Amino acid sequence: MVSVALPAMAQPSGQQPVLIGGAGLAAMRTEGARYPMFADELARVRKEVDAAMKAGIDVPVPKDPGGGRTHEQHKRNYMAIYGAGMLYRATGDKAYADYARRLLLEYAKLYPTLGLHPAAKNNSAGKLFWQSLNDAVWVVYSIQGYDAIRDTLSDADRKTIDDGVFRPMAKFIADDQPQVFDIIHNHATWACAAVGMTGYVLRDQVMVEKALKGTDRSGKVGFLKQIDQLFSPDGYYAEGPYYQRYALQPFVVFAHAIEQNEPQRKIFEYRDGVLTKAVRAAVQLTYDGYFFPFNDALTEKSLKTDELYQSVAIAYGATHDPSLLSIARWQGRTTLTPDGLEVARDLAAGKEKPFPYASMLFRDGPDGDQGAIAVMRAGPGDDDEVVAVKNTAQGMGHGHYDKLNWILYDAGRPIVTDYGAARFLNIEAKDGGRYLKENETWAKQTVAHNTLVVNETSQFDGKVKVANTLAPRQIFFSAEGDTRISTAEMAGAWPGVTFRRSIVQIEVGKGPPLVLDLLKVHGDKPAQYDLPLHFAGHIIDAGFPLQQNLAERPVLGKDDGYQHLWVDATGAPDASNARLTWINGERFYTWRMLPPAGAQVILGESGANDPKFNLRREPVLIQRVKSPGDTTFVGVLEPHGAYDPSAETTEGSTSRIESLRHVRTADADVVTLVLAGGRTVTLAIADSAEARATHKATVDGKPISWKGHFARFDGKGAGQ
Amino acid sequence: MVSVALPAMAQPSGQQPVLIGGAGLAAMRTEGARYPMFADELARVRKEVDAAMKAGIDVPVPKDPGGGRTHEQHKRNYMAIYGAGMLYRATGDKAYADYARRLLLEYAKLYPTLGLHPAAKNNSAGKLFWQSLNDAVWVVYSIQGYDAIRDTLSDADRKTIDDGVFRPMAKFIADDQPQVFDIIHNHATWACAAVGMTGYVLRDQVMVEKALKGTDRSGKVGFLKQIDQLFSPDGYYAEGPYYQRYALQPFVVFAHAIEQNEPQRKIFEYRDGVLTKAVRAAVQLTYDGYFFPFNDALTEKSLKTDELYQSVAIAYGATHDPSLLSIARWQGRTTLTPDGLEVARDLAAGKEKPFPYASMLFRDGPDGDQGAIAVMRAGPGDDDEVVAVKNTAQGMGHGHYDKLNWILYDAGRPIVTDYGAARFLNIEAKDGGRYLKENETWAKQTVAHNTLVVNETSQFDGKVKVANTLAPRQIFFSAEGDTRISTAEMAGAWPGVTFRRSIVQIEVGKGPPLVLDLLKVHGDKPAQYDLPLHFAGHIIDAGFPLQQNLAERPVLGKDDGYQHLWVDATGAPDASNARLTWINGERFYTWRMLPPAGAQVILGESGANDPKFNLRREPVLIQRVKSPGDTTFVGVLEPHGAYDPSAETTEGSTSRIESLRHVRTADADVVTLVLAGGRTVTLAIADSAEARATHKATVDGKPISWKGHFARFDGKGAGQ
Repeated sequence: MVSVALPAMAQPSGQQPVLIGGAGLAAMRTEGARYPMFADELARVRKEVDAAMKAGIDVPVPKDPGGGRTHEQHKRNYMAIYGAGMLYRATGDKAYADYARRLLLEYAKLYPTLGLHPAAKNNSAGKLFWQSLNDAVWVVYSIQGYDAIRDTLSDADRKTIDDGVFRPMAKFIADDQPQVFDIIHNHATWACAAVGMTGYVLRDQVMVEKALKGTDRSGKVGFLKQIDQLFSPDGYYAEGPYYQRYALQPFVVFAHAIEQNEPQRKIFEYRDGVLTKAVRAAVQLTYDGYFFPFNDALTEKSLKTDELYQSVAIAYGATHDPSLLSIARWQGRTTLTPDGLEVARDLAAGKEKPFPYASMLFRDGPDGDQGAIAVMRAGPGDDDEVVAVKNTAQGMGHGHYDKLNWILYDAGRPIVTDYGAARFLNIEAKDGGRYLKENETWAKQTVAHNTLVVNETSQFDGKVKVANTLAPRQIFFSAEGDTRISTAEMAGAWPGVTFRRSIVQIEVGKGPPLVLDLLKVHGDKPAQYDLPLHFAGHIIDAGFPLQQNLAERPVLGKDDGYQHLWVDATGAPDASNARLTWINGERFYTWRMLPPAGAQVILGESGANDPKFNLRREPVLIQRVKSPGDTTFVGVLEPHGAYDPSAETTEGSTSRIESLRHVRTADADVVTLVLAGGRTVTLAIADSAEARATHKATVDGKPISWKGHFARFDGKGAGQ
Repeated sequence: MVSVALPAMAQPSGQQPVLIGGAGLAAMRTEGARYPMFADELARVRKEVDAAMKAGIDVPVPKDPGGGRTHEQHKRNYMAIYGAGMLYRATGDKAYADYARRLLLEYAKLYPTLGLHPAAKNNSAGKLFWQSLNDAVWVVYSIQGYDAIRDTLSDADRKTIDDGVFRPMAKFIADDQPQVFDIIHNHATWACAAVGMTGYVLRDQVMVEKALKGTDRSGKVGFLKQIDQLFSPDGYYAEGPYYQRYALQPFVVFAHAIEQNEPQRKIFEYRDGVLTKAVRAAVQLTYDGYFFPFNDALTEKSLKTDELYQSVAIAYGATHDPSLLSIARWQGRTTLTPDGLEVARDLAAGKEKPFPYASMLFRDGPDGDQGAIAVMRAGPGDDDEVVAVKNTAQGMGHGHYDKLNWILYDAGRPIVTDYGAARFLNIEAKDGGRYLKENETWAKQTVAHNTLVVNETSQFDGKVKVANTLAPRQIFFSAEGDTRISTAEMAGAWPGVTFRRSIVQIEVGKGPPLVLDLLKVHGDKPAQYDLPLHFAGHIIDAGFPLQQNLAERPVLGKDDGYQHLWVDATGAPDASNARLTWINGERFYTWRMLPPAGAQVILGESGANDPKFNLRREPVLIQRVKSPGDTTFVGVLEPHGAYDPSAETTEGSTSRIESLRHVRTADADVVTLVLAGGRTVTLAIADSAEARATHKATVDGKPISWKGHFARFDGKGAGQ
């Protein structure tokens, strides 16, 4: 490669960039083209910005809701301002700086004329967009582009843009909307980042202080308090993985700005480095790159998003953790910043290490005592079985009523599923791209999840204020050896009801592990208990007789999500035949149950009472029992066999489990799986989590004893 | 790479391989490791055969149906015999020859003791398998493995295997089952290939003659007659693309054996080279590598199958067409034969050319006059829009009652769909892996396809004998320029009913083309006409009001597939609002109609009356009209917009078509699409296909005239 002389950059004193800087700033121009990932990003952004420049300046008067024309144009514009600024720094081409200047001058004309957005729907109206959240995002991007070109401007232009765009926008976001700004919520983080970064760029320390400590600068709210309150000590974000992705960007981008301007704050070491922990936690909470879709979440969301390109680059800049490079490799992109340059340079130098996907517990709550997500992985690969158990707190307005819910992935696919959110992001015909009515009536309801429902009523009666006050208790977690286990308990989701669930991932030789589900309910009065299992795949067969609704399909219930379930069939299985087998991709899955006495099984599908075709249609199996109060559900999920449509071969299409037994002792539950060939696996789970307590039981006439919450006993059979 | 001395191969005179030979036979050993694709195949087969050798000889007494243990074991065994034979030739390692010998000696013990298979269900019972077809497949593979090692055997072993396995199997397949052997059908082709190849290996020319000309050696049936009867002059196979794939293997494998042993027959030049044409046609009848699922077909079937690895390698050996190399590259595999070596060698030498995927007509019938499949492609790429129109004859027992059916792919996905077959291949719990009852009651029925249904009755009243006697007439096909068109007509599918359909692929600038569907019915009495459109995707919205079955879902009809359709909603749209929009992947699709006067639109889903959960649940839109006899349906399928879940951007989610108009003149139909901005595209389709006939019409008050069947007129609008 031939090195060419580059034009000198303009260097007016005192107005140089403050959000990016250091040696990397010049290196983007001199070295960038050498590193494939940076060169690709340069080409991508250049293509995008060149196209925007060719299309001409278009700064429309705001009118449309999400997905509409003016909404999308203002989004394109902030990407263009950001892109043009970075391109100017990465290439030295003044045309980019000039384009950003002209765009911003248009905004300086438009913005002072604007009232609240005409499509606004709530008390957080924006001006450029229907909600002020999007206005804050606009600032976070645009201020970075502006910072990159600000030293190229005449004093007059600089003042026009400072005073016509960013200063009034910061005022609108902070001072005019304290109900949005001064709260502990991800929307407020975008707002704080917007205002704080604007403060650095406009050299306005009061603005920075408001961002860090709230409009009254007391520190009771603001960015630092958000870091304290919204992340757990393990870096888990209160709203769940999908919003963790979204929330991360303003956290790390603003933190990066703080680090550039006030390194003495040691922001990346704040709370034991929780921000970079949070980036790693976001990656851990994925399968094959897709986020676990707990709470309001779109299932199609992966690590390939702008938020994560930024987060990974900034976290790499802060930590130089080489496993982040392998995430950047998977993403296939980085940022047009000095951090992105470093990612690309180190990838080109072969410094990457595999990301250490692991079985681990992510505690929830600022102090880590508000439950947890338990992740159990059969291995670190994209195809390895993963179980995730959601024992977290509610997580505010985007939370679902799904305490002690679980999901399972295997062979690269979701197998036991969570619906995620009912929303078509940015698709105007679907209610402007906002959360749909069915998000409330179906997706958030308990029956839409794989957890207990009492008397066809959602947890906390579907009231978020109550739900926010109570969290599950993570009683035990162990990821050692060939058996991983999570035990958690939830009290108060319904009056008088406590339920406890152990989910155990059990390796039994070759192939993906079995998963045991032991759910025990204690109620103070008789009740109907439902335990749904939402699954993905095509039903192969059921082990028990079915009464079917073949030619007219009724709905299961009236409310709390039940109105959205069609009933395909019902049955009354016993311990010998209670199983359902389905196929997904090239593997079979069998769900085997020990139904409580008198239990009924319902096979259904989502999609009833859905006049606008807003719901996906997905199958569910529900165990239903009228209980005197206390009931135990036992189930085992077994992946098995192989179906190869190319070679036309099929192996192991029937379950390897011959039977399933459950015994209750004085202080423990003991479950025995009898595998084909007579081999047995016995799992003993004590009520107590006390590590030194000893327990004993009798299994098949033989005594067993163990110490602590959990033990596994393998019995030999005829051999496998 | 270091060249090493290889052990000399055993060379007893007179018993050397006859199915593979020439310079390539030795070159497999000396050069094979140099070419990645051949080395990979060597490693793959070695791993498979080594595992089989380690597992030991297992030749069970036949007992189970498709998918069952003995079925799968006998399949594994023929792969092992074939693989071991090829490995012996590719490596010189006698252990492989010895393993094949020991396996075959076990068969020599077992086979003479066998009667018909206990799980046999029809008059084509096998002995090793439930149907004799599988026995023939067993021979086609095993005889190749045997041929490869036959010169290593003692005279005694050779005689034991000749007389204990292959001679009696050939007798069983040919002489004992003339009802299977002496017919024109793909099962018979496997039978002929099995017997003919056995004839060459056992040096039994009478056996070869029977294979080529039928058991009476008259030539009225047998392999040559099958080539004459089962392929059209364009290489289209009568049963459709899925069975073309399957049928190809015995055709090309046996042809290869004929070429080796009787080159004077010039078998690859027979009928103007129809066999290699057929290999290329099979590839043309795919999208993104997956076969168009017309007739009985599994949608998951791609070019990555053993049949096509063999076919591509043999066709390459016969033609050296470099575009076949790019197919082998896509497949990622070749065969462990001298032809496979050549594929791997020429790929390594960079000789591949892109496969010329094209818009073309594949005529059906031995003389090419039994209708056709019309394929229209927007481009040669995997993501380019493809329309395939099925105007072929019935195609025998695996044929569907779907004359003038069409499907559409775009952006790598099926958009307008064909259900294919109701079958779970090799999955024992699904009726032994055979075709399911629902294949007859749903998948074959007309309403399961995108074509006309009269009085809720399938074409030919669902009677295959009648259906086999009548074929559509392909009236016109043109793939020139920016507009591609197929017009075909079907008479006699119902008494007194003739219908004609033009499907037109229309390029209108950037983005995938629009597709016009013009379907005209002439009936001699009043009738109800249904026109289904089966589509894949999630409904975004309908342009017209719907009456919905929200809380109880009825079934559409009683028979002919209608019993399997749930009714979600009905509506009565008019020309101004008759559209449905859905999303699939990252693109939107709108189906816009000009419903006949009084028409109703039904939105439904497959899956009713399905007690064993055998059906996939897929959406359908049906236009329904009570007609006095003559009715015209006009529809336009429009791909539009882009949804990017990563970048959270959406463009063009609403249709670009403002209106749709249809005018009938004295001798033509004229359809005008008015696009956004006022631009118009007018398509004029004359009744006559006469190239020199002139036609005229008046559109929007202006006269137009054209010559021949079809013309397009573009009107300018305000610009696009």
